[in-house]
Amino acid sequence: MTSEYFHFLSIIGVAFFAISGTLLGHEKSVGGFGVVVVATVTALGGGTLRDILLNKPVFWIAQPDYLYATYIAIFASILSIRHLPDLSNTTMLLMDAVGMAIFNIIGIEKALIGGADMVVAITMGMTTGIFGGLMRDVICREVPLVMGEELYSTACLSGGLTYAALFTLEVSYIWCILGAFAVTVCLRLGAIHFGWQPNLFRKSSFKRS
Amino acid sequence: MTSEYFHFLSIIGVAFFAISGTLLGHEKSVGGFGVVVVATVTALGGGTLRDILLNKPVFWIAQPDYLYATYIAIFASILSIRHLPDLSNTTMLLMDAVGMAIFNIIGIEKALIGGADMVVAITMGMTTGIFGGLMRDVICREVPLVMGEELYSTACLSGGLTYAALFTLEVSYIWCILGAFAVTVCLRLGAIHFGWQPNLFRKSSFKRS
Amino acid sequence: MTSEYFHFLSIIGVAFFAISGTLLGHEKSVGGFGVVVVATVTALGGGTLRDILLNKPVFWIAQPDYLYATYIAIFASILSIRHLPDLSNTTMLLMDAVGMAIFNIIGIEKALIGGADMVVAITMGMTTGIFGGLMRDVICREVPLVMGEELYSTACLSGGLTYAALFTLEVSYIWCILGAFAVTVCLRLGAIHFGWQPNLFRKSSFKRS
Repeated sequence: MTSEYFHFLSIIGVAFFAISGTLLGHEKSVGGFGVVVVATVTALGGGTLRDILLNKPVFWIAQPDYLYATYIAIFASILSIRHLPDLSNTTMLLMDAVGMAIFNIIGIEKALIGGADMVVAITMGMTTGIFGGLMRDVICREVPLVMGEELYSTACLSGGLTYAALFTLEVSYIWCILGAFAVTVCLRLGAIHFGWQPNLFRKSSFKRS
Repeated sequence: MTSEYFHFLSIIGVAFFAISGTLLGHEKSVGGFGVVVVATVTALGGGTLRDILLNKPVFWIAQPDYLYATYIAIFASILSIRHLPDLSNTTMLLMDAVGMAIFNIIGIEKALIGGADMVVAITMGMTTGIFGGLMRDVICREVPLVMGEELYSTACLSGGLTYAALFTLEVSYIWCILGAFAVTVCLRLGAIHFGWQPNLFRKSSFKRS
Repeated sequence: MTSEYFHFLSIIGVAFFAISGTLLGHEKSVGGFGVVVVATVTALGGGTLRDILLNKPVFWIAQPDYLYATYIAIFASILSIRHLPDLSNTTMLLMDAVGMAIFNIIGIEKALIGGADMVVAITMGMTTGIFGGLMRDVICREVPLVMGEELYSTACLSGGLTYAALFTLEVSYIWCILGAFAVTVCLRLGAIHFGWQPNLFRKSSFKRS
């Protein structure tokens, strides 16, 4: 995958997470620029942790346009919320789902490029996809989505396994990306809409609501 | 700015944050050396994150005197609290304000020295100033100050913008520092005293209490 | 200490923390693979922070067998919990105590090998021992064990001081390790069983329950 792809995908992912952070900040009545802090942590947290773990330069310091994209997305969201203050919680979950799916893919690819094996790469994808939203939820004192009963990390993992399968089959990069993205987002949206609740501790049932 | 300045300012900032962590730990009845853990995280958290992000050696490992200063400030605070157990929450907020103002400045300067542009530097200042106190509040299960309705990150940002303006005007370093410090601390103390509550989501009003 | 020792001890420590994370995740009804995320963070969090602070390659990326050990311990725990769903909270505390004692020792030794002085090394041991469990508790919205009234960080510190004392006396490595391990685990188990509650803010009493 060329670095333009990376760049474009990362900008999109950062923007979606920034919006999700702004929406949660609004819902929780966070005051002043605190909203910007939460949204920035959400947008940049996962990728920052990934770069630190892989011992690479942190992406938004090396290329500040990620930081500008974050701030633009946040201020655009704030302006939108001023005119549409009744955005539902579902909007936040959708933004989060897309951001997670994109960062999952980028995390896997960055790890593979760095020479990691596939288990480490899938772990890195989940870290990148989940950590920003996790920090958002911890700071806002929400039950983290990853702790919730609805399928979340499972969607992220399924996307990672899809990527690994397609990668092993030597499918071209663009299909690896699209496949992993589709699986993650569809599972997550299905979980939001139908309330899928997997549980590893019960022997039979997958769904309980 | 010479490195002696850095050193002196950092020691002061670390001590103020250490005191704020000890005070919150006391208020929350944290047991045993748990207080030392919270206060140490408060004092060293922001600077540690800054050094990791900038890929520099972590300051308290490279120069352990920061660690000694932290421990001395913590034990001095514990001894004081034994004799003055009724220190108000406002004392904690004051300590936090001074620590935040100092670390804000140090974060900006370290980033500029490392070659970052001004937007990244201001972001790094806010990270350094806010992160230690944020970890303190998360660990103690308090509503993080940065999430509160009173002006907090706004004060930090205003200090950073003051620094940037004075820096661009080529004012000497000492005035950049004093200006940014004064703006951050005055706004924060004003917010504590007068209850200033900015809100980015409303079109007109700045203050609502 | 040879690197085989390190390796073996770290694998054991990682497994114990992974079990403690799975148990807490089960108790808090965390859904789907969210349990795996909490348990992985618990198992790898402390060591990851240690390696980042010391600017070493992160252990589970450099040697993925730590990651495999984590996943194996988690899935073994999940299978056990399916058949023994009534494991008490005390089991979790025991697993946590052993994991903390082992990571405390490894943190101290890694810091000493890296050339740190003894105060930094003991701080690094506490960081490594406490941070994984702290993240587990924060994510699960529990009162962190380190904040609790029962002796926890005090046990960790005592283990570190024991290591330092034996090390200074030039006792052979294996006894430094066994001594520090015994002191940490015994103090922690004593605290769990007898409810020892030290308090730095009171002048006389050590125990209050």
